[in-house]
Formats: sequence, C-alpha cells, structure tokens
Amino acid sequence: MYIVCSDLEGVFVPEIWINVSKITGIDELKLTTRDISDYNVLMRGRLNLLQKYGLKLHDIQKVISLLKPLPGALAFIEWIRERIQFIVVSDTFIEFADPIIEQLGRPTLLCHHLSIDPSGNITNYVLRQDDAKKKVVEALQGLNYKVIAIGDSYNDIAMLKKADFGILFNPPQNVIDENPGIKVVESYREIKSIISKLIHEEQQKDSETSD
Amino acid sequence: MYIVCSDLEGVFVPEIWINVSKITGIDELKLTTRDISDYNVLMRGRLNLLQKYGLKLHDIQKVISLLKPLPGALAFIEWIRERIQFIVVSDTFIEFADPIIEQLGRPTLLCHHLSIDPSGNITNYVLRQDDAKKKVVEALQGLNYKVIAIGDSYNDIAMLKKADFGILFNPPQNVIDENPGIKVVESYREIKSIISKLIHEEQQKDSETSD
Repeated sequence: MYIVCSDLEGVFVPEIWINVSKITGIDELKLTTRDISDYNVLMRGRLNLLQKYGLKLHDIQKVISLLKPLPGALAFIEWIRERIQFIVVSDTFIEFADPIIEQLGRPTLLCHHLSIDPSGNITNYVLRQDDAKKKVVEALQGLNYKVIAIGDSYNDIAMLKKADFGILFNPPQNVIDENPGIKVVESYREIKSIISKLIHEEQQKDSETSD
Repeated sequence: MYIVCSDLEGVFVPEIWINVSKITGIDELKLTTRDISDYNVLMRGRLNLLQKYGLKLHDIQKVISLLKPLPGALAFIEWIRERIQFIVVSDTFIEFADPIIEQLGRPTLLCHHLSIDPSGNITNYVLRQDDAKKKVVEALQGLNYKVIAIGDSYNDIAMLKKADFGILFNPPQNVIDENPGIKVVESYREIKSIISKLIHEEQQKDSETSD
C-alpha cells in the first residue's frame, strides 16, 4: 500500500514567511533558510521581530489566512485523497499552517508547534524532533506502507531519499544539481501520472499474487 | 503535541458487515468477530459469500455507500480536525471503507486492503501487519506525539492501552468488564471535553516551560 507524504510550502502553498513579509511590510521577515543556514537563529529572529512589532499569534494567523494555495493545489490534493492516503509533512508550525491547511481541506499535518502565552504572544517554538520529515517516512514504512514523498527544497532531501519514491517539485536549480538521483517534476499532472502508475503496478502485482 | 487515533466502525459509522447483510438480504454476511473468533476464517467466509452471490467490489461499495455515519459523527470529526491532528485506524479494508470515509470528509485512514482482479472480483485480502492498530500508536509516539485513542471493541484494546489516553466509546458490557482501567464514555460530547482538557493542560505546561 502506498501513502503520499508531501511538504507544504513550495508544493501546495507559497513560501509563508516571504509573503508574511510582503503583507506586513516587515522586510526582515523575508529571510529564509537560504539566507540564514542555522534554523534556530532564523526562528529566534522571526519571533523577536514579531515581538518587536507587537504581532501576536492571532495577527500573524490573520496575515497567513490571506495567502492562497498555489493554482490547482486543492484539486490536486483532492485527486490524491480519492486514490491513496495522504499526509502533509512540514517543518512549519501547526499554528501558522492552520489557516492554509483549512483551505486545503484539512489533510493530516505532521509538523512542529509554538508555545503561546495566555495573552496570545508567541513565546517559543517546539521542534517535534530532529530529522522530523525523514522519521515520518521511516515510521510509515515500519507500518508496511510504501511512501511516495514530495518536496521542493533542502530540508526535504532526507525524506525524499528515504521514501520508496521521492519527487522534487519545482526545486531551485542548486537542489537539482546536488541531487541528481531524485526525480524532478514541474507540474501536478506529472505527479498524478507517477502516482497512477505506481498504484496500477501494485494492483497488478497483488492480483498476480492472489491467483 | 496530541494526535487522535480513532477506530471507524462503532465510533463514527455503524458496523459495516451487519448492515451489508441487512441491505443485501444475505443473512450469513452478518457474522462478525463475536461469532467467529478467527478473523481469517471470517474473512475467507465473507469473500466466498460475495463470490457465491456474484457480488463484485463495485456492488459491495454501492451497498456500503448507502450506510450513513452515526448522528453527529461528521460534526464531531470536524471539531477534532479544527483543534488537533486526526487519523482513523481501522481493521477494515480501504476499498470497503472508502464510500464512508468520503462522507466523513476523507480523514487519513490507516487500515488493510483487498486484492481485486481486472474484472473487479475480490480475490483476496491483505492485512497490512499484525497488531496494526497498536503499531500505529507506537509509530506516532516514536514521532513524539502523545496519542488519544478511541475505540469500541476487543480489537481496539491493545491500541487504547498503548495510547497516552485511551477511550472506550459505547462498548459492549463484556469489554467494559474485562478492561476496568480504560475510560468509558457514551457521547461525542464527553470525548470533546476530554480532548479540550488535555490540549489545555499541554498548552499551560508549554507556556510555563517557555517562561
């Protein structure tokens, strides 16, 4: 049995922080892991900026709810969910992702979470575990699933390599160059064709085994 | 972070085979694990009956699609999914459950699957693994989730005991008597109250830790 594990930002929705930066006009919020390689430094910086500008969780959720999924994303997710189990695996925080996940029909989302004080201030962030994406793939394989993983960037590579079938969706050129072994696609249509083929092959094998 | 793992039949939908038996008029199909303790004997018998009466997957799916979720089930699931991640864990087969899962808003469903030949006959069934429900709980705990598990019968007990919080929903009296340590509830309202309390306590702990 196949299951799909997919990244969120860059695959179904635009990069959250770049767009939060645009909407709020807070230029420093557009920094990503491509600018600051240490994720903890990056997240501390973001939380400090939110505090500096007096933005509570509620404010930032309102901004994020203005973001729209990428064109065709919802229909693509619905197509997958009609055929195969589907889980979103992200390095974002559940509280930030929620307004967008709602627009995507609330698929299961495995990610990290924030600490919020009683006044609604974001006081800290809690990474669920190291190598979180790769560990989700391993856990599902331990449950006898074959994993089709979809991602677009550096933090997806370990997950894509661990998966039974890894797919890079519209990645930056440097990610393509550094990972020549991973299938690269440019459209949801291509992913649908891969998933259909894998499901069909498995059904044929099942059918032969049971003859 | 909490995640909810719930059984399907008896919690959100009526028992599938008892109702398939009623709708098709095939009396022998109403047997369950309460009548035949060996699950393999039971499933072999069911598949033989489907073959005997010329019922293909498509026919049985049409029958199952006539079943309706239990009153309030969809609203309850939507309530959960707005607050916390949610996965259905069942010993049914994905092809049988699909028409009902669709009515429940297509939550992630981890279960078993069938082998179907090119003409649409059900030729075999494939159990994903032994102790499948309990292993889902263990896998999620390995991903640093705390699991709230909901079930109603014997095949849920190992999952409920392994979970961080196990809940028996309207179980038969013998299941209650044999498992005095597991919380028993009679309504979705009671489960909502338990989930709300657990989430609230965790948020408070998070908030204190980050002070």
